[in-house]
Formats: sequence, structure tokens, C-alpha cells
Amino acid sequence: MFLKKVSTMRCFRLDGIYSAIHQYQFTVLLLIVHIIFIVLFGVYVSFDELYAMPSAANDNTYLTIKYPYYMGTHVMIFIGFAYLMAFLKRYGYSAISINMLLACVTIEWAVLCRGFFSKSFADTGTISLNIDQLLHSDFSAACILISMGVVLGKLSPIQYVIMTLIEIPAAAATEHLVVDTFQINDAGGSIVVHVFGAYFGIALSLAFSRKAQRAHEHDGSIYHTDMFAMLGTLFIFVNWPSLNAATAVTAEAHHRAIINTHLSLVGCTVATFLVCPIFEPHKKFNMVQIANSTIAGGVAIGTCANVVLDPILSLALGSIAGVISVLGYIYLTPYLSARLRLHDTCGLHNLHGMPGILAGLFSAVMAVAYPKERFGPSLASIYPAMMEGQTEQGQALMQLAGLGTVLGISIIIGAITGIILRCPLINQVRDEEYFADGDYFHTPDDYEFTTKISAMVRSHHFEKENADNGSTVVQRMITEVANGVA
Amino acid sequence: MFLKKVSTMRCFRLDGIYSAIHQYQFTVLLLIVHIIFIVLFGVYVSFDELYAMPSAANDNTYLTIKYPYYMGTHVMIFIGFAYLMAFLKRYGYSAISINMLLACVTIEWAVLCRGFFSKSFADTGTISLNIDQLLHSDFSAACILISMGVVLGKLSPIQYVIMTLIEIPAAAATEHLVVDTFQINDAGGSIVVHVFGAYFGIALSLAFSRKAQRAHEHDGSIYHTDMFAMLGTLFIFVNWPSLNAATAVTAEAHHRAIINTHLSLVGCTVATFLVCPIFEPHKKFNMVQIANSTIAGGVAIGTCANVVLDPILSLALGSIAGVISVLGYIYLTPYLSARLRLHDTCGLHNLHGMPGILAGLFSAVMAVAYPKERFGPSLASIYPAMMEGQTEQGQALMQLAGLGTVLGISIIIGAITGIILRCPLINQVRDEEYFADGDYFHTPDDYEFTTKISAMVRSHHFEKENADNGSTVVQRMITEVANGVA
Amino acid sequence: MFLKKVSTMRCFRLDGIYSAIHQYQFTVLLLIVHIIFIVLFGVYVSFDELYAMPSAANDNTYLTIKYPYYMGTHVMIFIGFAYLMAFLKRYGYSAISINMLLACVTIEWAVLCRGFFSKSFADTGTISLNIDQLLHSDFSAACILISMGVVLGKLSPIQYVIMTLIEIPAAAATEHLVVDTFQINDAGGSIVVHVFGAYFGIALSLAFSRKAQRAHEHDGSIYHTDMFAMLGTLFIFVNWPSLNAATAVTAEAHHRAIINTHLSLVGCTVATFLVCPIFEPHKKFNMVQIANSTIAGGVAIGTCANVVLDPILSLALGSIAGVISVLGYIYLTPYLSARLRLHDTCGLHNLHGMPGILAGLFSAVMAVAYPKERFGPSLASIYPAMMEGQTEQGQALMQLAGLGTVLGISIIIGAITGIILRCPLINQVRDEEYFADGDYFHTPDDYEFTTKISAMVRSHHFEKENADNGSTVVQRMITEVANGVA
Repeated sequence: MFLKKVSTMRCFRLDGIYSAIHQYQFTVLLLIVHIIFIVLFGVYVSFDELYAMPSAANDNTYLTIKYPYYMGTHVMIFIGFAYLMAFLKRYGYSAISINMLLACVTIEWAVLCRGFFSKSFADTGTISLNIDQLLHSDFSAACILISMGVVLGKLSPIQYVIMTLIEIPAAAATEHLVVDTFQINDAGGSIVVHVFGAYFGIALSLAFSRKAQRAHEHDGSIYHTDMFAMLGTLFIFVNWPSLNAATAVTAEAHHRAIINTHLSLVGCTVATFLVCPIFEPHKKFNMVQIANSTIAGGVAIGTCANVVLDPILSLALGSIAGVISVLGYIYLTPYLSARLRLHDTCGLHNLHGMPGILAGLFSAVMAVAYPKERFGPSLASIYPAMMEGQTEQGQALMQLAGLGTVLGISIIIGAITGIILRCPLINQVRDEEYFADGDYFHTPDDYEFTTKISAMVRSHHFEKENADNGSTVVQRMITEVANGVA
Repeated sequence: MFLKKVSTMRCFRLDGIYSAIHQYQFTVLLLIVHIIFIVLFGVYVSFDELYAMPSAANDNTYLTIKYPYYMGTHVMIFIGFAYLMAFLKRYGYSAISINMLLACVTIEWAVLCRGFFSKSFADTGTISLNIDQLLHSDFSAACILISMGVVLGKLSPIQYVIMTLIEIPAAAATEHLVVDTFQINDAGGSIVVHVFGAYFGIALSLAFSRKAQRAHEHDGSIYHTDMFAMLGTLFIFVNWPSLNAATAVTAEAHHRAIINTHLSLVGCTVATFLVCPIFEPHKKFNMVQIANSTIAGGVAIGTCANVVLDPILSLALGSIAGVISVLGYIYLTPYLSARLRLHDTCGLHNLHGMPGILAGLFSAVMAVAYPKERFGPSLASIYPAMMEGQTEQGQALMQLAGLGTVLGISIIIGAITGIILRCPLINQVRDEEYFADGDYFHTPDDYEFTTKISAMVRSHHFEKENADNGSTVVQRMITEVANGVA
Repeated sequence: MFLKKVSTMRCFRLDGIYSAIHQYQFTVLLLIVHIIFIVLFGVYVSFDELYAMPSAANDNTYLTIKYPYYMGTHVMIFIGFAYLMAFLKRYGYSAISINMLLACVTIEWAVLCRGFFSKSFADTGTISLNIDQLLHSDFSAACILISMGVVLGKLSPIQYVIMTLIEIPAAAATEHLVVDTFQINDAGGSIVVHVFGAYFGIALSLAFSRKAQRAHEHDGSIYHTDMFAMLGTLFIFVNWPSLNAATAVTAEAHHRAIINTHLSLVGCTVATFLVCPIFEPHKKFNMVQIANSTIAGGVAIGTCANVVLDPILSLALGSIAGVISVLGYIYLTPYLSARLRLHDTCGLHNLHGMPGILAGLFSAVMAVAYPKERFGPSLASIYPAMMEGQTEQGQALMQLAGLGTVLGISIIIGAITGIILRCPLINQVRDEEYFADGDYFHTPDDYEFTTKISAMVRSHHFEKENADNGSTVVQRMITEVANGVA
């Protein structure tokens, strides 16, 4: 009896410790990380003397060029991605809030990680901050948020944060390798951001796969959440030219990147509407594809946005991306789910994964298709290696090598991260609470009602009985109540 | 019996053909059109050598001036118009998606149509693409989307596309006529975009009028769709200065167009709030007018945004536009519906039609009110004809002639388009599915519930019984159920 | 009997007069005010000869610098503030519409009030209008909308308008005093806009306090209104760098203000997520804090956005603001409500009040921390007084004096305004209609249903019975009905 009491006590104490670990781990981790970031900012980060310190010349040119691109990119990250992921009926609070949190953690962490690889740091030991660093940290945020989209609704807040902390330095190092060493051109980051983010997320999701994640009752949208999702789509659509032009160096490359992205998105949208009703089972438009496939054109043109010299190519490339993306949603996603047990909440393999690979392959073709003479003085900023004698074929191989490297590293690190996140000491989402806010957010009184109504309607066979005369069970249900009241 | 069998077979085959025609006509048409557009882009469209090709000078000035206007206009088109039209309770998916599709088809088609009328094409046989062409194709999209707003919920997707294919070249040719030949000033396109789009749509709607369209149970908003509509309104409000300034040529004209549009919208908003509760039956604010009339000021000032030299005029003109628009919604729309059987879903006659005519009339007054000396070196870009000796009175007449021409052509082509769209081979919306997504979009499980609840509540007389004590039938209905459960 | 009849008649006539006063007072006041504004615009306001008249040089530099800041600020005012205040379940129409109305009235009135204090008016008797005046009138709108947020749902439309008419000149005069006479630096207006708006609103709310306002059944959000609120939050977040950079003068100060605001918001967001789940009763994230506290960093850095020369300070200051704001929501708001009977609908004391005071105190520290030599040629635009010999300590005292002056004046004028608004001749909101649209807006058929459902669910104890197995009363309720139907 004494022994039993002791063991019960120990059990209680262990329970208490476990419970405290689970309750405070998110705050403790974030607090430690945030303090470290602030200290590192204090030690290493200072304003760029050239642009942002009183000693700078009073010349707004650089800022007025870059600022609209920064604003557009910022809107894509904080509003576009957030609302695009808000399509789940019970996960809107989380999608928007966690999107905001991860973007902010990324901005802090990416300024540091990218800074440590920068020329300014190598030369002076200081990370020099101007609007370009803000832009590039937003690019890193895009990478994280793409991974988030794949595992949306399946991680707890601390798991999302850990994922971010691991993925940022991996992505920054990989980018440093393929951009600075392989010297690939990747203007809009389709390879280093979209492919990395998507396949990292996919590998993580595979390593984290559970049966309860598939065909979950909460995994779906309701009418007004799709309206919110389209808001995300449209803000991404409208601002993508800014993102793809942001890193271009010469004026004409900016100009061309904007037009190429604009045309690719337009072609992609038309192709999506074209293909969707043919291959969809009910021959109707599906909001999943309209919200996602329409913007695949921005990924596909990303790598070469500053290169493509013929408008027809952007239009055609975007159209191909749209077709691939729609077919991916309709055929490939169910196939991968059945065969590999891959669950990809937002279907980002079809929005960022395959279109990103398409962007990489296309960039190899482009390197050969347009000989270096055509770029004149722009060559130095587009294909710096060619200035030092790299051939077109060599550049094409480098583009492919870059793509392969990104794919390989992202999958390996993503899988490792997935295994780490399975550690039972880290908070896990309960099976019945996948794709739901309830465990981590205060929810209002109508949470159950608004978000469960569709499942209720479905599970009680409240389906259209006679679609032609418009009489539905819902109608009858309300009539019944009305008669009861009268 | 053999004959009967044959006839049945033929009937079956004909049925099958008809069914196939109806099922695939949208995709087939869009596919053909899209391929033709891509080919035409390949043959005729290339990047502007001056700004977007490697041979261009490395000077961002032009792009930094234009890019914020382009972004603002793009947001208006893809987000503003989309959400403003998303007010219908069962047509949100369609409003936002079809808005996106038509805008994209327009951008492709307008680059070509406008290009064929351009000076660059006349000189070189090539359509030269820079950010200006993107801006102008967005203007064309505005024109189409205004027409779409008039017939919102009454056309099938293929009908919308056919409308677009006809309207774009008609609008481009008309614009070419009145701007390049009559040499009218129409900075924000109130005449060539807003009046054309509105009266084209009105004529189409008249030619397409059916009894089932009027007082339809689905024709109305619910609480949260009005919240989405206001989002559209506000994005239009905020970005309209960009649209009206986009085509101005000199710096001071840009500057003035921004301020004039800003002031006109402000005056219009105050006037709307002022007038609305007086003339509304229940003496309350009506969201229809707040979502629409508040932005009529942007139309009214559009034509002369670069001309008006006294701030008071913009403020007063906007106020007049607001009053006209509100009174139009309250008195004219019901009158036209009763007398002409005109159904105008978004009431765009009051938002784009009448304020557009006001803009045209005002532009004639302005041509006389400010003598040409006042414009100094800006005269060439504002009233080019005056440089060649046109008098103020002559310019005023030209402005009126332009307005009349646009009105006439838009009404004629709109009516013809309406008659074409009635062809029974083209998919038609079923009477009971006007203003509803269900026939063309996958809808979620709550579609019936969320979107029909208001009709249910109304049709079963679930009205406030005793507004003073706050007890409603809805409350009682839920109480009944609660008691049943307990 | 005769006497009784007379008294009844008089009573009827008085009733009629009272009723007419109440019905038309909003329109009459707004009409008079609007006409006066238009006349004053005619008499005093003209376009700036330097930038917006045909005589101006054809140089877009100034406009391209300022325009993105203006657009960002405009989006914050008309979309950010509007949707952030749309969180109340039954007050969405009002929040968005009245936000729009007050912003427009403010823009008219602020151009005049600020103009009368301007140097151009002192010199020439004319208010000279360029994009700067539009920007500054948007700043004034922010001030009004902050006050509106404190009394959200508690004033009738005319009361909001009267508040605006009084507050604008008071705020403009105060700003003139502290900025032009005390010569404080307040780049983003945290003192003259945020502190003024917040404490004016708080004093007004106190003077207007009624028991029925506290713990009102309509005072709360539902699921999708929080989704709208987050849209407001994110548009404020994304555009705040534009607002804080807008008034900076030199290029490097613009650049630095953008980075400082960006970092402060990022730090603040991370801090909010860090602190919120620890101190919240249920240890979960609360959307109130995520929607509000995350953006407190924009206020805190506002005053010194152009001053701070070390990135770490922005990051740390934002983090402190986030912590203060979250703790304010959790502990201070309930305390002030219980002790002072202060009802602050949006909790803006925690978003604009305390972080604004923090900004003021921080600005005093900064004045001393960075000696004037460090600012080189920027000194004239940042600390003009120091050019004329003011010491760092003197400047710090001036910053504190400015903060104190703004606090004092805003509280006094706010209290007086509150007392004026209690006048029974002015329309008052009925107790049961606090935080509700119904008395002033046409509402759709689902208004009662959508917005009351949560109160119903709560008041009938429709709570989760057994959260673990997912069976809820709502589920049972629908099951019951289903069985009834079957």
C-alpha cells in the first residue's frame, strides 16, 4: 500500500510535469528563441549606411523602385497566403493567426540566417539592413507558409514553430548553394522558395502521416470560407508581379518580369476554367481549383520572369501550368493519397510543387534558347556565370542541378523534421481535432453551429431530395419547426 | 414499329448531340479562343524595345511612375469588382470566379484589339507591350465587368464569355473613334469605359429580359455577403485615384487627377449618407446605396480628373453624383423595372450609367469653362486638338459627340449581343437557378442552408413579432427545439 | 375637456416636432455642414501651384515618393480600421459604413482645419492642396476612427458626426501646438493621433457611460466576424510602414521608418503569441488579442520611426508593446470596467492608448540617447529645434511636455463632448440596441438568425456536453429535427 501510494504520487508528479511541459512548451520555446533573436539583432544587425543612416545621400530612387514590390510581396505573405489557407471550415482562426506568427518568426530568423551567408557579413561581420533584406525575408516566409499549407491543420502551434526554426536555415543554406555557387537564375524563387517549401512540406507530411488525417470530417470548406479563400487567391494574383520583379536588377528586367508574370497568370486562369469542368466528375467548376490552380502561373514563370523575351511564351507556359495543376488536383492528389498515404491539405503539390519543377525545367530550356548575346548589359545580373565564360549549355545544366539539389535537400530535411515532430514530448493534435481551432483558440458560441452544420447536414442525409422542384430537407426541416411553433 | 425505333434512335442521337453540345460548348469555345489568342500573341505581340528589352536604358523612372497606378487598377478589377458583385446570397462563387475569368479573357483579347488600333501597329506591324498596355487592358476589363454587373446571375458561363468576345472589339473601336478621331479628353474612361459598359449591359439585359428574373427569390443579399460587398466597395474607393491618374501624361496632371478623384469620392460618400435615409421608405441606411452610390463620384470625375483646376468643383460634382445615384436606386430602378421590364442586378445604371453621362456633360462644360491658355504645356496631352486650333466650344461639342456616339454604339451592340445570346443552342440559365451557383459550381454541404435560410425565414413569416422586447420567432423556434431536446 | 384636447393636441404637435427633429436631425446637420465645407473649399482651397497646376514643372519625383505612402495609409483608414471594427456580430454594417462616413467627413474638415494652421495660409490666405494634405487628412481620420473604436456601438450616427466635428479642430489645434510650438518629433503621429484619439474616446466613453453598455448580449463576435476583423488587422499590419514613413522628409528617414515599423510589428506579433496563452484563463489564443495586440508595435514605434538608429531597439520596443497590450486586455480592461465603469468596445486603450504613451516616453529617451551629431543633415527635419540650439535634454522634456499636453487636452475635450452628446434632443441609441445595426440600417432576412444564433445557443445552455466524443447539443438538436422529419 505504501508502495502503491508512492507510485501514485510519482505518477501524479510525472503527470504534473508532463502537463506543465505540454502547457508551457510553446511559450518557453518561443520566449527563448525570441530573446536569442533580439540579442543576435543587437550584436550583428545594423542599418545599411548607404540607404538608411543619416550619412546616406538624400536620394529616394532605390526606395521608390523597391517599395511597391515590397508592399506587394508583404500583402501576398500576410493576406494572400493567410486567407487562401482559411478555406477549412473549422480552422480559419488558426490558418490566419499561425500564418501571421510563422511569417513574423521567419522574418526575424531569415534576416539572421540569410545575413550570415551575405557578402556584407563576410566583409564586415555585420548584417546590413535595407529594404532588400525585408524583401528577402518575405521570400523566406513564402517558403515556410507553403510548407505550412501542406500540413495545415495537422500540427500544433509549437510544431509549426519548430518546423520554421529548422526549415529557414536549411532553405537559406540551399539557396546560398544553388544561387551563389551554382549561379542559377531564379528571379521569383520558384526553385529555391516554391519547390523547397512544397517538397519539404510533402516529406514532412509523409513522415507524419496518420490514418485519421485522411477523409477527416473537418477537412473541407463551407460557403463563406471559400469566399475568404478567394480573397487570398486574388491578393496573390494581383501582387505576384511585384514578387517576381522584386529581385530583378535592371529596369528592363523589372518591367519584363511584371509583364511576364501578368501574362502567365492570365493564361493560367483561362486554362484552369477551360480544363476544370471537363475533368471534374460533375462537370462543374470546383472552387478548390479556381482558388489554387489559377495562380500556378505565377510559380511557373517565376524562375525566368526576368529572362523570357517573347510574350507568347509566358502566356503558353502559364496555360500549361494551369492544366497540370488542375489535373494534379483531380487525379494525382487522390492517387498519392491512396498509394503513398500522402495527405496534402491545400494540395500545394499542384500549386507550388509541380509548377515549381516546371519552372526549373523551363529555365534550363530558356538558358539554351536565348543565347547570351541577347541580354547585353543585363547579362551580368541575370546569368553572372556567363560573364565568366559559362556556356548556355553549362548554364542549363546548372539550372537542372540547382533544381535537383533543392528537391533532394528539401525532401531529406523535411522528412527528418517530420520524424522530430513525432516526438511525444512535443504537443500533438488529437485525432478528432485535426483541422479544427478548438484546442488552441478561444472559439465563439457559434463555432460548433457554424462550422459543424455542413457535417450535420451530410451525416443525417439532409441532401437534396428533389433538386428540380427546389424542395430540400433543410427546407422541410425549417417548415416542421415553423409548424411546431405556429 | 421499325420506324418508331429509328425515330427514337435518331431522337436519342440528337439528344446525345444536344447534350454534348451543351456540356462541352464552354470548353470548346474557350479552348479555340485561347489558342487563337496565343497564336496571335506569337505573331503580333512583342516587348517594347524602349522599356522591356535588354537593349533598353537602365532607367526605372517610367515604371516607378506607372506601377502604383497599375497595381491600384489591378486591385480594383480583380478584387473590387469581384467582391462588390458578391453581394448575392447564392451567387458568390460565380461572381468572384466569373469576374476573374472575364478579366483574364479581356486582358488577352484587349491587348490584341487595342493593339491593332495602335500607332505602333500601324507603323511596324507589331503590338509593342509595356506596362501601359497592361493598364489599358485592365481598363477594358472594367468595361466588361460593368456589363457583367448588369446581367449578373442571368447568364451562363459561356454567355458571359461570348458577351466579352463581342464587347471588347466594339468598345476598343468606339474608343479609337472618339479618343483618336474626335480627340475627346476622357482621362479615367468614364465615357469610353463606364458609359459603354453600363449601356451595353442595359441593352443586353433588355434584349434578354424574362419575367422570372424580376423579384426572384435568390435576388438579394444576406448579412455576410453585404460585408463582402463592402470590401469590394472600399477597394474600389481606395484605388480609384490610381485608375483616374493612370493615363494622365504630365506630372501635375497625375497629381491633380489623384486629388480630384479623392475629393469627388469623399463628397459623393457624404452625399450618399445624407440623402439615403431621407428617401428610403424606412428612413434607414440601405447597404445597396452605401456599397454603390458612395463610389459614383469616381465615375463622375473620371473624364475630367486631369482637367479640373478648382478643388471645390470635384467636391461638388461628387456630391451631385451621390445624390443622383441614390435617387436612381430608390426611384428610377423600380420605375425602369416596371415600365421597361429592365432588370439591372447591381443597379449599375445608377453607379456607372448616369454618373458616366454626368461625367460626359461636365466635360463639355469644363472645355468651355477653362480657356486653353490655362493649361500651358499640358494642353498637348489634355486637349491635343486645341493645339491644332480647335476652339473651346468645338472641344465641348466633341465631348458631347463622343458621349452620344458611345451611348449609341453601346446600346446597339449590346442589344444585338442580347439577341445572339438568346439562341437556344447556347446554354441558358434555368428560371429557378437565376442568381444561383448550383448549376455551374460544386457547392458545399451548407450551400442550401446558408443561402436559403433567409428565404425560408421570410416565406414562413418568421418575422419579428415584437421588436420591442426582442422576442423573435427565430428565438422561439430555437427554444422549441431546445425544449424538445431537454 | 377642452383643455385636455388642447393639451393632447399640443402634446401631439410637440411629439410631431420631436419626432421630426429626431428623424431629420442627422440629414439636416450633415447637409448644413457639407454645404459649409464646400463653400469654404471654394473660398480657401486651391491646388498647389508647385505640384498640381499646369504651371508646375513636369517632374514626378515628389509624387512617386509619396504616392505609395498615401495609398498604404488610405487602405489602413478605409479598409483596415473598418474591418477591424467589424468584429461585433450585429454591428458589421454600421462599423464599416460609419467608418467610411466619418473618414470622409474628416477628410473635408481636416483639410480646412489643418489648412488654417498652415504656413501657406498664414502667408497667402490660401490652403494649398497637394498629396501631403491628403496624407495628413488621413492621419486626422485615424484619430477620429480610434475614438470611434472606443465608443463603437454606443453612439447614433449623428452623435458620431458631432463627435467628429468637435474632435478634428481640437486635435488639429493640439497638433499645431505640440508640433509647431513645442517642436516635438512625432513621425507616425503616435502622440498627436493615437494618444489623442484614444484618450478623447475614453473620456467621451466615461462621460457617456451607462450600465446597459456593459456585459451587453450583443457585445461580442461570431466566427466569421472575427475572420473579417483579422482582415482589418492584416491590412493595418501591412500598411503601417507606409503611414510611419509618410511624413519623414529625407530619403534615409523614409527608409529607416519603414524598417523600424516592420521590425516593431514583427516583434510585437511574436510577443503577443508568446504571452497570450499564458495569461488567458483557458490557456488558449484569444482572437481579440491576436487581432489587436499584434499591431500595437506600429503605435509604439510611430513617434520615433525616423529616429531609431539600431534595429534591435525597434524589435525590442515592439515586443514590449505587445506584452503591455495583451496584459492590458486581460487585466486592465476588466479592472477599469469594474472600477471606473469604463466601457471601451475595441479595447483601444490597449492598442492605441498605452502603446501611444510608450511611444511618447520612448521618444524622450531617444532624444537623449542619440546626440544630435548623429543625425547630420537630417537633424533639421527630425529635431528642428536642435538646429536653433535646443539641447538633447531640452528636446526630451519637450517630447514629454507634448505627450502630457495631448493627454490633458484630449481628456478634457473628450469629456465635454461626451456631456454634449448626452443631450436628449440628440438621437440616442436604445439600451437594447447597443452594438446593433437594426435601428439605423435596413437588415436582411437572416439578420436575426445569423447574428442572434450565438446568444441563443448560449442562453439555452446549448453547450458542449461531451466535448471528447464530439456530440453536442447542436448536433442533437439537428438530429431531433431530422427524426421529426423522417
